Amino acid sequence: MAQGRFITLEGGEGVGKSTQARALAAALRARGHDVVETREPGGSPGAEAIRALLLEGERERWTAGAEALLFAAARADHVARTIRPALEGGAWVVCDRFLDSSFAYQGGPDAIPHEALMALHDVGSGGLLPDCTLLLALPEEEALARAGARDRDGGDRFGARDPAYHAAVAGAFHAIAQADPARVRLVDASGTVEAVTARLLSAIEP
Amino acid sequence: MAQGRFITLEGGEGVGKSTQARALAAALRARGHDVVETREPGGSPGAEAIRALLLEGERERWTAGAEALLFAAARADHVARTIRPALEGGAWVVCDRFLDSSFAYQGGPDAIPHEALMALHDVGSGGLLPDCTLLLALPEEEALARAGARDRDGGDRFGARDPAYHAAVAGAFHAIAQADPARVRLVDASGTVEAVTARLLSAIEP
Repeated sequence: MAQGRFITLEGGEGVGKSTQARALAAALRARGHDVVETREPGGSPGAEAIRALLLEGERERWTAGAEALLFAAARADHVARTIRPALEGGAWVVCDRFLDSSFAYQGGPDAIPHEALMALHDVGSGGLLPDCTLLLALPEEEALARAGARDRDGGDRFGARDPAYHAAVAGAFHAIAQADPARVRLVDASGTVEAVTARLLSAIEP
Repeated sequence: MAQGRFITLEGGEGVGKSTQARALAAALRARGHDVVETREPGGSPGAEAIRALLLEGERERWTAGAEALLFAAARADHVARTIRPALEGGAWVVCDRFLDSSFAYQGGPDAIPHEALMALHDVGSGGLLPDCTLLLALPEEEALARAGARDRDGGDRFGARDPAYHAAVAGAFHAIAQADPARVRLVDASGTVEAVTARLLSAIEP
């Protein structure tokens, strides 16, 4: 039985992850792959219920520790109910955000140690790592302008935070790419949607 | 400023924890202490929202790992919003279930390692331990009969499980008491409510 491939798209607010996840999934389907397109937090009924707790309400609703645990719980459900069954059925999984977002947000500005976040991922998801992670990168001002144009209502509990917060997230993402170059590929997210999708497709070549 | 004392009541279904938490809190108030009575999962607005996810729905709703993470997230909120502020204000906190229930349920029949559960508690709650834990113990048949009389509708996602499950939980609770006798005191929960409360009061004497 064919084993699928697990591809994640990562990056801060406004770099175009959702648009590119959709475009990449379509391009892979056009090549004949069975593709499951999903996103975090969420991607399964239990994880979607947790997503509502995470994205709605006041910024100070949860402590950093509670937030990290809720993201890990949502991910555990998503992995068990959606991602592992798809991979075991031979599908490719294209996922908008995954573990690296926890490393970048809860490990970055919130300063929860990498080992602690990995311990949560081990308990919840058996430590599952993507086969390939595509880190979309844009100059900071451009990403903030794009996110601002999208989130005219102010965004969710994360999008609404200040530029220093998002700069810390971007720095944490770059550190992740440097620490694990075999898995994480940095992709220039500037230019047209089609140009970026073409870069993603060449980045996932074995 | 006086520092409060943090007392938890633990044990399986039907041993009388809720009744005794109420009675113990009343007895401590009668002695002049400021007492905050609370319970898990829940005890703060965020934790109550997570409680609904944990106790409602099908038994197989969550994997063991997701469940352990959700309990730890609820506990993190409860500790940050309710327990630590009360202790810092000099109150005594009497809590119906806490960390040892995770060790007994998720560590017992679900077999999540003790160190992994402690890692979740470190991230969420800074590893806070009770000053004193009162483990209520009853012969298994008596506890199951009491729980059955209370939960005529079948109980929640945990109460509704089979006797072998509850026996594994009871065994795990006893192992916890043996491993940490300085903190955890085994209390006979048979007899009248008043008799048990009197035993609890003498068990918490320094």
